[in-house]
Amino acid sequence: MKIYEDNDFFIEDEKSEIPWLKIFTQKEYKELSDLPPELRLKLFELSNIVELQMRSYFAPDKINIASFANMLPRVHLHIMARYKNDSYFPQPMWGEKQRNADLKLPSFDLFYKSLQTKLQQFTS
Amino acid sequence: MKIYEDNDFFIEDEKSEIPWLKIFTQKEYKELSDLPPELRLKLFELSNIVELQMRSYFAPDKINIASFANMLPRVHLHIMARYKNDSYFPQPMWGEKQRNADLKLPSFDLFYKSLQTKLQQFTS
Repeated sequence: MKIYEDNDFFIEDEKSEIPWLKIFTQKEYKELSDLPPELRLKLFELSNIVELQMRSYFAPDKINIASFANMLPRVHLHIMARYKNDSYFPQPMWGEKQRNADLKLPSFDLFYKSLQTKLQQFTS
Repeated sequence: MKIYEDNDFFIEDEKSEIPWLKIFTQKEYKELSDLPPELRLKLFELSNIVELQMRSYFAPDKINIASFANMLPRVHLHIMARYKNDSYFPQPMWGEKQRNADLKLPSFDLFYKSLQTKLQQFTS
């Protein structure tokens, strides 16, 4: 589901037990270093806003960030809110499953709404 | 092994079959969003220099970047040069092993030397 979009970027959620968002550039690039410098700066600013809102709303034990795109070489940023009792912690979400977690987290939809407000403030 | 150091950051290699460097802040922070803005900017600039040098020297199939630090909550950046025939591709290096790779890569030591030159040019 697309939860944010502007001329340069869009943000989608990844279906998961944890809060997990992905930031894509509208134009496709293979690597972060292929982005024009101003776009790279804006990506890190968006990522920082997402991270701060995740921390404020979900109070996770740790934020995880990753840029892989090995299957389809189109660079994008994963931002994940991790909990000590989530199914993979302390492994990355791509690692070995540690347990069957049952996280009780506040509404993801309300989080997306609060994040949209913050992102629109930043880009307007 | 520490391959670079300044007042704000140091860079270490991770022993691996692939080129894999880790950028740490000298002062410890838990999350990227805890870094002062100017330090965060410098971190992304250092990461970009490492990435560009990796691409130029090793010609990898994909660059992977990650910030996890779940075991010990001290933020740092992993920068990895990935190859289609490395042991984990297309999985992240924390994922399931796919094969026993035998990569023939140019000298890591010479890469570290060329990278040191680039980083010193940037920070001086």
